[in-house]
Amino acid sequence: MDPDIAIVRDHFLRLQSEIVKTFEELDGAAKFSSERIESVRGGFSQPRVLANGKILEKAAVQFTYTLGEQLPAAASESRPHLAGSGFAATSISTIVHPRNPHIPTTHLNLRMFVVDTKPKVWYFGGGFDLTPYLPYEEDFVEWHQFARQACSSDEQYKTLKRKCDEYFFIHHRNECRGIGGLFFDDYDDGGFEASFQFVQSVGKNFLTAYSSLIERRRNIKWSVEEEDWMLIRRGRYAEFNLAIDRGTKYGLQSGRRIESVLASLPPRAKWVYDHLAAPNSPQDRLKDYLKPGIDWVNFVDNSVYSDES
Amino acid sequence: MDPDIAIVRDHFLRLQSEIVKTFEELDGAAKFSSERIESVRGGFSQPRVLANGKILEKAAVQFTYTLGEQLPAAASESRPHLAGSGFAATSISTIVHPRNPHIPTTHLNLRMFVVDTKPKVWYFGGGFDLTPYLPYEEDFVEWHQFARQACSSDEQYKTLKRKCDEYFFIHHRNECRGIGGLFFDDYDDGGFEASFQFVQSVGKNFLTAYSSLIERRRNIKWSVEEEDWMLIRRGRYAEFNLAIDRGTKYGLQSGRRIESVLASLPPRAKWVYDHLAAPNSPQDRLKDYLKPGIDWVNFVDNSVYSDES
Repeated sequence: MDPDIAIVRDHFLRLQSEIVKTFEELDGAAKFSSERIESVRGGFSQPRVLANGKILEKAAVQFTYTLGEQLPAAASESRPHLAGSGFAATSISTIVHPRNPHIPTTHLNLRMFVVDTKPKVWYFGGGFDLTPYLPYEEDFVEWHQFARQACSSDEQYKTLKRKCDEYFFIHHRNECRGIGGLFFDDYDDGGFEASFQFVQSVGKNFLTAYSSLIERRRNIKWSVEEEDWMLIRRGRYAEFNLAIDRGTKYGLQSGRRIESVLASLPPRAKWVYDHLAAPNSPQDRLKDYLKPGIDWVNFVDNSVYSDES
Repeated sequence: MDPDIAIVRDHFLRLQSEIVKTFEELDGAAKFSSERIESVRGGFSQPRVLANGKILEKAAVQFTYTLGEQLPAAASESRPHLAGSGFAATSISTIVHPRNPHIPTTHLNLRMFVVDTKPKVWYFGGGFDLTPYLPYEEDFVEWHQFARQACSSDEQYKTLKRKCDEYFFIHHRNECRGIGGLFFDDYDDGGFEASFQFVQSVGKNFLTAYSSLIERRRNIKWSVEEEDWMLIRRGRYAEFNLAIDRGTKYGLQSGRRIESVLASLPPRAKWVYDHLAAPNSPQDRLKDYLKPGIDWVNFVDNSVYSDES
């Protein structure tokens, strides 16, 4: 099969519909907005956003298809020489901020670039990650089992999991944004057909994994303290997205539609000066899991974890 | 008088006490925390933070005194060749997030650097600015009258006001963070005595100007809608501080104590996708004032303003 961005674009459009449908069913109350925004040379975007749901406080599932004259440097991590060429790009990104602190926040991104060099260069990028508020080990293990399942080998999973830990490390807080998942860029392993298969697998496993977490935790009652904790942790999420994230940075600098770029920001967040969770509370124990290098797929119990951390 | 950082440091310590005392009296309920954090080579910092007051939802008044081995490049806008030299620095910064949307958020920063070159180089930097939530023209005019009063000439005011408009312009939102004030860097006009006098004048006029605003607006009742609007606008404040502000960027990258660097962030903030204020509401009209180049000191009425905008 020849590399064909139209096939990938249409797959992302279907995936967007599927994610929207699944989230609306899971929420049971709120619906996603629907827009189609035309851009130059036949490109278009479809931001779909849900607000104030019963389960989902805010969710954004955004599709873009771009035909550009000059590839931005930020679009390729390891091939800066491509910058400036004409290109086509398509992407889907998803972010969910649930209402219940027992359900983690999550993020998915999938994208394909085709660059008008001779011969054409194409590659995929993306990944998914999980940002929990409370330390449910079984959730984290299951999440990474789905991440492993999205990959074609242990080795691939380990590589992309490590990249994810690295990308989402917040140096100024000395912790990871969450418990990770998969992260890949400049990806063309095994040619177009194999790569596209992998990208489809990532999207599918993401949706299954996150739906499972929502179902397991949706009926847990939460306290004001737990909600407050979630809002403080969401502040750190905003710190990452605004001060560190490459995609946001590129979006802010390139003058893309700002409401789309910042749709990932939390609906509500708090910053409390020098806030510390009560020692040994679940909130306090969360920090033990926000570390790079935890072997979640082979994770057994706390003693194993303690040896490694 | 010879340039003497000890004199400036002691002045900033007194100013910190004065600001804390004034804010505690204005609030009438909450008190500032008090810490002294020792650092290397005899430097120290004193972060003082108030939370959950009656009038002030969060206020941070922070003092620092640093003796450093290598001046960071970010410490001097126009003299990058100084980077790497030994230096002494002292600063005071203040940020207030009031509870009532009818009272603006404000920010003050004053700092002095002495660089161990031969001969020694010294300069001041700083300024103050105002971030309102609702369009009270008389407040904005008065604020800038105090800014003018802090300066020694119309010309100086105009220059530093323009720099403030430039620094606090949020390109990705195409608006200023607020209605401005004064901004200066690499400042040594007229020698040490005159510069230090100016810096003292900036601090004094800041405190008078902001106290006046609090007194005028503190008893106005506010609606849920107005509070929500304030929270959304605070989200933009967080956007500026995390994605744009030079001081925050330097703080995050240099590994300074993170709770001090981020003490400026709002206690609560909201991000609502594609939020638009009701046409012609006071909230909507605020945007007409978040523009560079408004001549506030000579501002007369809406018709004059309309001609300029």
